[in-house]
Amino acid sequence: MERTLLLTLRYDGSRYHGWQVQQNAVAVQEVFQNALKDLLGSRPDLKACSRTDTGVHADMFCVSFETDSRIPCDQFPQALNMRLPRDIAVYGCREVEKGFHARYHCLGKRYVYQILNTKQRNPFYEGRAFHYRYRLDENMLDKAAAQYIGKHDFSGFCSYKSTVEDTVRTVNRACVERRGDMVTFTVEADGFLYNMVRIMVGTLLRIAQGKFASDRIPMILEKGDRALAGPTAPAEGLYLSRVFYPFDPLDSKESVQF
Amino acid sequence: MERTLLLTLRYDGSRYHGWQVQQNAVAVQEVFQNALKDLLGSRPDLKACSRTDTGVHADMFCVSFETDSRIPCDQFPQALNMRLPRDIAVYGCREVEKGFHARYHCLGKRYVYQILNTKQRNPFYEGRAFHYRYRLDENMLDKAAAQYIGKHDFSGFCSYKSTVEDTVRTVNRACVERRGDMVTFTVEADGFLYNMVRIMVGTLLRIAQGKFASDRIPMILEKGDRALAGPTAPAEGLYLSRVFYPFDPLDSKESVQF
Repeated sequence: MERTLLLTLRYDGSRYHGWQVQQNAVAVQEVFQNALKDLLGSRPDLKACSRTDTGVHADMFCVSFETDSRIPCDQFPQALNMRLPRDIAVYGCREVEKGFHARYHCLGKRYVYQILNTKQRNPFYEGRAFHYRYRLDENMLDKAAAQYIGKHDFSGFCSYKSTVEDTVRTVNRACVERRGDMVTFTVEADGFLYNMVRIMVGTLLRIAQGKFASDRIPMILEKGDRALAGPTAPAEGLYLSRVFYPFDPLDSKESVQF
Repeated sequence: MERTLLLTLRYDGSRYHGWQVQQNAVAVQEVFQNALKDLLGSRPDLKACSRTDTGVHADMFCVSFETDSRIPCDQFPQALNMRLPRDIAVYGCREVEKGFHARYHCLGKRYVYQILNTKQRNPFYEGRAFHYRYRLDENMLDKAAAQYIGKHDFSGFCSYKSTVEDTVRTVNRACVERRGDMVTFTVEADGFLYNMVRIMVGTLLRIAQGKFASDRIPMILEKGDRALAGPTAPAEGLYLSRVFYPFDPLDSKESVQF
């Protein structure tokens, strides 16, 4: 009997050229498909919630696929983790309705960008946070970040390399918080454009440096010009933190409605 | 003019065979001495607060040495960090009285042992915490850990390999706490024996498993028999977290009294 399964995993993206399989570069997808093939005997067609860029991390990443396997959901994570390298691990598995697609049925996502705000670098955050040496005013940045909230054309916060046509997205949450030396930017939206979060962060840092005025964000949103925004912040601080579905991907007892 | 300096650093110990220089193995000390030699022109005689074992981390580690260098204290961390690999970083430098010795003048130390208490492993804690799959009762463990507090002969919590004669140490603090999925054992003492913290943790885990009775710790302390204690817990969860001196090693303005 064919089942559709939704797996939840996390990975440290440092060693990988993002999720998506590419030529001449190791992607998380490839390593993950090999582990699945080893477990199931055949290579399933994976539907992923998202792409991620080179070096970007995922604290929550979802993939769906169809399989004839009879392995119970509660044994899937352990069986796969034995076959995965130490920087990738599955922590959830649930059965979903036939036809479910991890990307098309995703309602939105949350990204978190970590900035280590200390004079000297910290070995425990190497590759896991962007090190920024000069003191950041998190209250000022939080006020600036709130300007991202709403339904806007985010074409000014999209890489020139992108070919997507519809650049309107709805940001439901955008805030900056400090916990000790760590300053985090959290953003939730119904979807994200290529490099969108990293350009949002690069723009906030320009505001922090006094190089952009406090009304720069509404101006970029209005003009839609990438050249007006800040640089793309480094990948190492970025985490896909949450993927939203009409149900909890980690609750295998709840019934699926979508 | 000769000055005595006290440097404070942290390191991820994963790649190293501990602090102390050994034959046929890379130690943190060696890498650190090379960076100092590159900066100062000569290789100073380093006095370290402690040794650490292979794979053990340090969130705070102090070394003292004498130098003719005129580099101001506030420029030392940055100048050294440019010469150190990404898993070692200096974050403090202060001048101390001539004759100061980072080990002899140390009043005590704090170690923290991190246990990631989740069903599946987490890529972001690989090599940074010990992964323990079965649910731990932190309140029960905290009560057990309190039995370590006091002046005791800790020979039952010392590696057979140790040749130290005086095995009496005073533990001032010993507690177990949970923050989400992370269970931590924190212990402060005037000194530690070889593998002492890791055997303390191994013993607590045996108590958690119900293999040792709740009065096992006082029994081991009384009998002083290593064979009665639990196994040596893995190095990856252990952090030297604080080194205590009669002054703050990070406050370069405070005057030194020891």
